Amino acid sequence: MKVLVLGAGQLAQMMHLAAAHLGVEVLAVDVKDNSVVNPVTKQAYEFDLAFAIEEASVITVEFEHIPEVLLGIVEKSGKLAPNVQSIMAGADRVREKQLLEKYAVSNCQHLIIDNLDQLANIDKKLGEQIIFKASRDGYDGYGQWRMKSASDIAPLKEIFTSLDLQKVPLIAESMSKFEREISVVGARDLQGNIRCFQIAENLHFEGQLHVSVAPAPSLSESHIAQATDIFATIVNGLNYTGVLAVEIFQVDEQLLVNEIAPRVHNSGHWTQDGADTCQFEQHIRAILGFPLGSVKAKGVTAMVNIIGCTSFSQNLIGIEGCHLHWYGKTLREKRKMGHINVVADNYAALGDKLTALLDYLPSEYFPLLADEAARLSTMK
Amino acid sequence: MKVLVLGAGQLAQMMHLAAAHLGVEVLAVDVKDNSVVNPVTKQAYEFDLAFAIEEASVITVEFEHIPEVLLGIVEKSGKLAPNVQSIMAGADRVREKQLLEKYAVSNCQHLIIDNLDQLANIDKKLGEQIIFKASRDGYDGYGQWRMKSASDIAPLKEIFTSLDLQKVPLIAESMSKFEREISVVGARDLQGNIRCFQIAENLHFEGQLHVSVAPAPSLSESHIAQATDIFATIVNGLNYTGVLAVEIFQVDEQLLVNEIAPRVHNSGHWTQDGADTCQFEQHIRAILGFPLGSVKAKGVTAMVNIIGCTSFSQNLIGIEGCHLHWYGKTLREKRKMGHINVVADNYAALGDKLTALLDYLPSEYFPLLADEAARLSTMK
Repeated sequence: MKVLVLGAGQLAQMMHLAAAHLGVEVLAVDVKDNSVVNPVTKQAYEFDLAFAIEEASVITVEFEHIPEVLLGIVEKSGKLAPNVQSIMAGADRVREKQLLEKYAVSNCQHLIIDNLDQLANIDKKLGEQIIFKASRDGYDGYGQWRMKSASDIAPLKEIFTSLDLQKVPLIAESMSKFEREISVVGARDLQGNIRCFQIAENLHFEGQLHVSVAPAPSLSESHIAQATDIFATIVNGLNYTGVLAVEIFQVDEQLLVNEIAPRVHNSGHWTQDGADTCQFEQHIRAILGFPLGSVKAKGVTAMVNIIGCTSFSQNLIGIEGCHLHWYGKTLREKRKMGHINVVADNYAALGDKLTALLDYLPSEYFPLLADEAARLSTMK
Repeated sequence: MKVLVLGAGQLAQMMHLAAAHLGVEVLAVDVKDNSVVNPVTKQAYEFDLAFAIEEASVITVEFEHIPEVLLGIVEKSGKLAPNVQSIMAGADRVREKQLLEKYAVSNCQHLIIDNLDQLANIDKKLGEQIIFKASRDGYDGYGQWRMKSASDIAPLKEIFTSLDLQKVPLIAESMSKFEREISVVGARDLQGNIRCFQIAENLHFEGQLHVSVAPAPSLSESHIAQATDIFATIVNGLNYTGVLAVEIFQVDEQLLVNEIAPRVHNSGHWTQDGADTCQFEQHIRAILGFPLGSVKAKGVTAMVNIIGCTSFSQNLIGIEGCHLHWYGKTLREKRKMGHINVVADNYAALGDKLTALLDYLPSEYFPLLADEAARLSTMK
C-alpha cells in the first residue's frame, strides 16, 4: 500500500518512518520539479509523477502551499486527502477567515485589505498594534509586517504599494496581548470519528515555534472543552480527513483561533515520543481508512526545535526520556534542522530534564529554553 | 553518518527506521549478491559494496550466518561491530559451547558429535530425549533433529551419514524438561557500559518463537540478577559492542544458557513500543559510540509474531496499545511476516487486550495466543 505526499521535507520523512511499520510505503513529491523521491534518503525513483499517482492508494500533503497546477492534477485522481477546500483554507488566509466566520468560530479582530485606502485610520478600527499578513504563501514569519503605532501607517503603505493586493490581499489583525498560544492537533477519520491529542502550549521567538509543552500546563477543563469543540466544528465543517492543527490564542478567558494547518504540525511532534500513537501514524491511519490510534499521553512532553544550528552535542540523547529527531537537511539560518522530545512523569521532572539538556546546546539558538525549564521546574 | 548492515531483512529495516531519527542512515547489503540496498524499499543504490564500506562509519550484522568471504572483507575495513569472534560465536554452535565453557556459564548438558560412533549409547550419557543441532547455518528450527527414545538412534544415524560431521559437527543436547525459556536482550557500549532491557519470556511452537512477554511474569529477583550476570559475563568476555541476546532455559531453580545471538533479536522486538529506547536504536547508539538510552519499560508488553500468514484484519491497530510492525515480505510458509506489540498497564489488562486481538487473527496461525491471553488475564 502506497501513500504519496506532496512535499518532500521533514514532515513527509516522518510520515514515511511512522507508516513503514504498518506496511505502508510513503513516497514524496518534490514540488520544485515534480520528481518522486524517497522521503528519507531523497533518492529519486525511476518512475514519474503520473505513475506514482496511479500507484498510490491515497495522496496527501505535508504543506498547504502546493502549486495550483499540481494540486489540480492530483485532485483529478480522486485520491486526495484531505480535500482541496481544506488545503486551500490553510493556504489562503482570506478563505481561512471566511471559514471561521462561516462556522462562527472566534478569531482575532481583523480586516481584509485589498486596497491601500483601507489603511487610512486603520488604527481606529483595530488599534495601533496590528500585524499584516500576506494572505497566501506566507510561512513561519515570512510575508508578515508589524505596525507598532499609527506613525507606521505611512511607511507600511509605501512597502505595500509593491504588492498586488487585488490578487493577494493582506489580512490586518489586531494584535491582542495574548496570554499564550495553544494548539489542538487531532485527526478525523473517514467515518467522521475525531480524536484530539492533548493540547500543547507553544512558545515562539521571532515568529518561529521554539518550544511546545503538552499537555499545556494550567489549562482549565472548560478551555479544553472549548478548544476541542472548535476543532470539531472546523473538521466537520470541512468534511476533513487526516490530521489537522488549530492554533489558538488564549486571551484572558477567551480563545481566539489564530491559524488552521490542514496537515501534521510542528506543535504535534511531541506525540512521537509522548503519545501512544504519533500524529504521523495517526494521519496515515485516518487517510487510509484504518481505525484511529489511542491518543493517550505517556506523561508530559516538551518538544524543542533545533533552528539554524548543528553545533550541539549528540550526547544529549543520554538524558533519560530525551529523543532526537534529525531531519538531515543542509544548514541555513533560521531553518528547522530537527527537534528534541523530552518526556517526563510530571512538569517538575520535565523542567529538570530541560535544565540538563541546556548543557548540551548552544544557548544562543535556544533563547526560550532556560526560562521554560525554570518555569516548569517549579510546577507540581 | 552511515551504518552498513550485512543482511537486508526485517532487522536491517527496523534498524533503518529507528536510526533515521538520529540522523543516521542505515544501508543494507543483500548477502546473496553483495548489492547495497535501502533496507525498507529494497531499492538498490547505484554504488557498490566497496564504496558503501568506504562511506560507512560502522558496519554491523543483522544475522550471524554471513558468508565468510564477505565477513573477511568487512573485517579488514576495521569498522565491524560487534567483532568477528562474537559473530562467529553466534554462527557456530561449537564455538558457542566452547565460549560458555570457557566463561563457566551454565548451559545444557551436551556433546559435540564429529563422528557417528559417538551415537552409540548416547542415551546413557545425555538421556533418551536429545536434540541434535547442526553446529553451523542452523536457523529457527532448520538443521535440527529430535531423538525421543533410544530406538531413534539407528534412523538418526542413517540420516546423519549424509552429513560431513568433520566439517560441520552436530551438537547433541540433553532435552531438559525446562520450565520455560527467557531471554536477556541488552547492549554494551564502546566504554563497556551495559544496559539490559527487562527480561522476556518466550513461547515457541514447532521451533519458532511465537510470543514474548516482557517483563517475564513471576521471575524472581535472584533469577533476574543471575541472568543479567550471565549477560555481562558473555559480553565482557567477547569485548562486545552492540545489542546481544542470550536465550536461557529456566529449569526449576537453574538457569541454563541455550543460545547466544550477537545481534538484535526477535525476543527484543517488544522494546519498540514497550521501552523508552528500542533495541534497534540502542544497537545503533552502542556501535556509533553514542550514550546508551534508557531501558525503562513502559508497562508490560507482549510481542506476537505473524508467521506464514497475511490474512488478518489490519483493524487490530484500533485496540489501544496495539502496534503493528509489518515487514513487507512475500508470503512463504513459516516465514516471519511481521509482529504485533501490545502494551498494557499490567498483565491482566494485557491478557484482555490479547483476547481482543484474537478476534482479528486467524487462530490456526496463532496456536499459543488464546492460552497465553487466558493465563495473563488471571494475573495481577
